[in-house]
Amino acid sequence: MTDSSCQVVRTLDVIGEKWSLLIIRNALRGQTKYSEFRESLGAPTDILTSRLAKLVESGVLEKRAYREPGDRERASYHLTERGQALRVVIAAMMQWGNEYNPAPQGAASLLVDTDGATVELAYVGSSGAVLDRGEVLIAPGPAASTQWAPIGAIARG
Amino acid sequence: MTDSSCQVVRTLDVIGEKWSLLIIRNALRGQTKYSEFRESLGAPTDILTSRLAKLVESGVLEKRAYREPGDRERASYHLTERGQALRVVIAAMMQWGNEYNPAPQGAASLLVDTDGATVELAYVGSSGAVLDRGEVLIAPGPAASTQWAPIGAIARG
Repeated sequence: MTDSSCQVVRTLDVIGEKWSLLIIRNALRGQTKYSEFRESLGAPTDILTSRLAKLVESGVLEKRAYREPGDRERASYHLTERGQALRVVIAAMMQWGNEYNPAPQGAASLLVDTDGATVELAYVGSSGAVLDRGEVLIAPGPAASTQWAPIGAIARG
Repeated sequence: MTDSSCQVVRTLDVIGEKWSLLIIRNALRGQTKYSEFRESLGAPTDILTSRLAKLVESGVLEKRAYREPGDRERASYHLTERGQALRVVIAAMMQWGNEYNPAPQGAASLLVDTDGATVELAYVGSSGAVLDRGEVLIAPGPAASTQWAPIGAIARG
């Protein structure tokens, strides 16, 4: 990739490979066992093993040993705080999908609070007020590596 | 992919291929011309052409013709409303990256309002109150296709 200070590139380095984000999605649904990931994702086992190892290496999942009675020791995978925080990326994809690419059969997942009430992902300004999406833009930061378009040309909406 | 009602899978179908999300990132920065995408991304030209075509096909970009004085007609690419709305996915990745995988040289991009003040992506409940991330979870929706873990086991944080 071309600019390693870009947070989008850096995040893609952690979760951008096929299956990685779906492993995280399933972990957020409460799955921890290799067999659960394998059965629900249908990913090839060598790929699944490699993605789980990479997510452990990057601190998104923590590997633990468990043993069921009469069985051999197996590994389970648990989201770290860093991994839990990826819920915001999954939530953004769910929200965009619900609005702009809904499935005919309805939503497979919902973002809810602990009472089951609907939650939305929204832009909040420094005053704590929720902003309209037309009031928000992505601007160059201190480490911007490339020349951006003039600020007036930056897409809004 | 295994379950096409899942909004994460459906969103990955649109933006999950390598380079697609970076094209959208650059379009949100104001780029529209093929030559701008090519120079700043460094993607192979055949891949770039194919990704741009797919994003046009899926209604994320709109292709327009333009002609500079004395030059031949060329194509430019503009985010549609559907494409603009993908800012939330980019913003989620930026925010996670800033907190959990920051670049040593600082942030390349910032999420700001029209006055340049910092904006955050936050979870907002139905009452309009900003929720702590520990109060939010992803739960099965009406079209959930697979058996999920018992709700008490769903990861929070």
